[in-house]
Amino acid sequence: MTRSGAARVRLAISMGDPAGIGPEVLLKTLALPAVSRHVEPIIVGDRAVLDETAARLGLRVALRAGHGTRRGAVRVVPTSVLAARHRAPGAPRSTAAAAACGEAAYRAILGAVDLVQTGAADALVTAPISKANVVAAGHAFPGHTELLAELCGGVPVRMMMVGPRLRVVLVTTHLALADVPRAIRVDGVLETVLITAEALRRRFRIARPRIAVAGLNPHAGEGGLFGHEDTRVIAPAVRAARRRRLAVSGPLAADGIFAHAADGAYDAVVCMYHDQGLAPFKLLHFADGVNFTLGLPFVRTSPDHGTAFDIAGTGGADPRSMCAAVQLAARLAAPRNQLLSGTPTAQ
Amino acid sequence: MTRSGAARVRLAISMGDPAGIGPEVLLKTLALPAVSRHVEPIIVGDRAVLDETAARLGLRVALRAGHGTRRGAVRVVPTSVLAARHRAPGAPRSTAAAAACGEAAYRAILGAVDLVQTGAADALVTAPISKANVVAAGHAFPGHTELLAELCGGVPVRMMMVGPRLRVVLVTTHLALADVPRAIRVDGVLETVLITAEALRRRFRIARPRIAVAGLNPHAGEGGLFGHEDTRVIAPAVRAARRRRLAVSGPLAADGIFAHAADGAYDAVVCMYHDQGLAPFKLLHFADGVNFTLGLPFVRTSPDHGTAFDIAGTGGADPRSMCAAVQLAARLAAPRNQLLSGTPTAQ
Repeated sequence: MTRSGAARVRLAISMGDPAGIGPEVLLKTLALPAVSRHVEPIIVGDRAVLDETAARLGLRVALRAGHGTRRGAVRVVPTSVLAARHRAPGAPRSTAAAAACGEAAYRAILGAVDLVQTGAADALVTAPISKANVVAAGHAFPGHTELLAELCGGVPVRMMMVGPRLRVVLVTTHLALADVPRAIRVDGVLETVLITAEALRRRFRIARPRIAVAGLNPHAGEGGLFGHEDTRVIAPAVRAARRRRLAVSGPLAADGIFAHAADGAYDAVVCMYHDQGLAPFKLLHFADGVNFTLGLPFVRTSPDHGTAFDIAGTGGADPRSMCAAVQLAARLAAPRNQLLSGTPTAQ
Repeated sequence: MTRSGAARVRLAISMGDPAGIGPEVLLKTLALPAVSRHVEPIIVGDRAVLDETAARLGLRVALRAGHGTRRGAVRVVPTSVLAARHRAPGAPRSTAAAAACGEAAYRAILGAVDLVQTGAADALVTAPISKANVVAAGHAFPGHTELLAELCGGVPVRMMMVGPRLRVVLVTTHLALADVPRAIRVDGVLETVLITAEALRRRFRIARPRIAVAGLNPHAGEGGLFGHEDTRVIAPAVRAARRRRLAVSGPLAADGIFAHAADGAYDAVVCMYHDQGLAPFKLLHFADGVNFTLGLPFVRTSPDHGTAFDIAGTGGADPRSMCAAVQLAARLAAPRNQLLSGTPTAQ
């Protein structure tokens, strides 16, 4: 239980693609008492989509348009008014529907970011969008995270996956494996380590974070026997981070690092490429992992899944990752002196 | 409990490097009643090393030289007589000691393989060796598995890691990551799938094994967006395997495949490179994973760790992986009609 009178954390939540599972997992999450106790949600998106989703699911989440702090009623900031024919859940059946959904999803992001940047919200949670739909709406859109970085003035960002037992951060993301060895540079690895250390200190309030850096090659190259990136790129970056008095270990053999991290030896693992970090992470946290963007001037989390058009509208979407995303954002954005003892804090 | 009178499985066990933790984890394992009930071990190696290790650990494992089936006494086939100065545990202190230990380890392997090939043993378990020491002894020695393949006439082999929840098989092993994309060829992936299917059917007695094949690139390349190996190399290999009526899925995104496999959706995951398979595997099975060599005409297992010279002689070595290796070998080599109901069968 929150101490009586403690302020709830104000979360701006973009609804995601209106035809995906975003609205569903969002409303399911906000219907949980454990969430509404700590969170003052502000959904940014399409009111009719939210009303219809709540009615379809039989969820008793009261939505309201105005300001105020009445508990139990969730404020909605409308950023689109979709025509009824474009509100059907599932993969869009026409180019026009794709563009309409993409435009609505895009405006919801802009609106939610605006709330955080103007101080009307404390942190941002984004529901999943369809990149194809946003592009169909005419936006040059490389991805959610890239758009957020741009809206914040082009800051360097990194993706951290957060679960109860593991935190992993990626140096490179959506890149062919063949391109990874050349894409890894001393400054890129060092920057990732520095951004990770800053996030662990500032957001997770770990005074002296212990960071493990994974090697690129088997056995971290075994002294140059299998590739030279570990000795020539990763090791110098680790040394540079240590000179800044950070508790950084590496390059460590990637096949042992995750077991040690999951046992508590490290606060985060910096990984060189997508599957190096995400394969072990999702093995432990398939349903409850949260995507947390490092480097932004505010807290932003999102669930670790996509729009899942194939099950949208069925009511069968699993809200655990969204629930974890909302709870993590609330915890990381809570004032330092505020105990959120009722919030699950394993993450 | 084994049915009264059921024959125990005869395991030839090479002692590994005499200065490593091999003799210790081996004797600790054989001292367990659950093991000796099902296994008739034949240790191949150095009698004095074994006697001294048992005495140091205070283990009551009776060793004997001759034949016979008296329970509780472990038969030793001596393949070396190391000088006392070369029997000290830990990293070798001289070139002569390294060569002596390497030679002893090498001969133990040859002796143990001979027992299996002549029918005097049903399966092989190998304790960890030091590649450097075997090379110091003058042998051209690429590795344990390669030597075994050569001793069996140059058969194609693959490494499978076996744990209670996951089985992974590697297409490539100790290779720089930059060399992996080019090293993956249709025939190599197909051969791995076929060897895996054969092992699952013949050794694990799974009538219709379900095999997942991991993609190389993020999201298995997402239709060529991140690299073409998934569509041009892995997909054709999977199709060829399916034409042979095998239940093979893939290429599947590597960041989701292991959670599904651990939940029972697949009997094994074929992985393209070392860390793709071993990082998730060791996250679940750091202490109890077993290395099982596929493709040999006999069962061979080994623990999933090295000589650990740094703790050799301290008595602190964890025998769980060796214990699992012995139990798995016994289970896989047991006659089909013999129930080993007392043996842990989770693997």
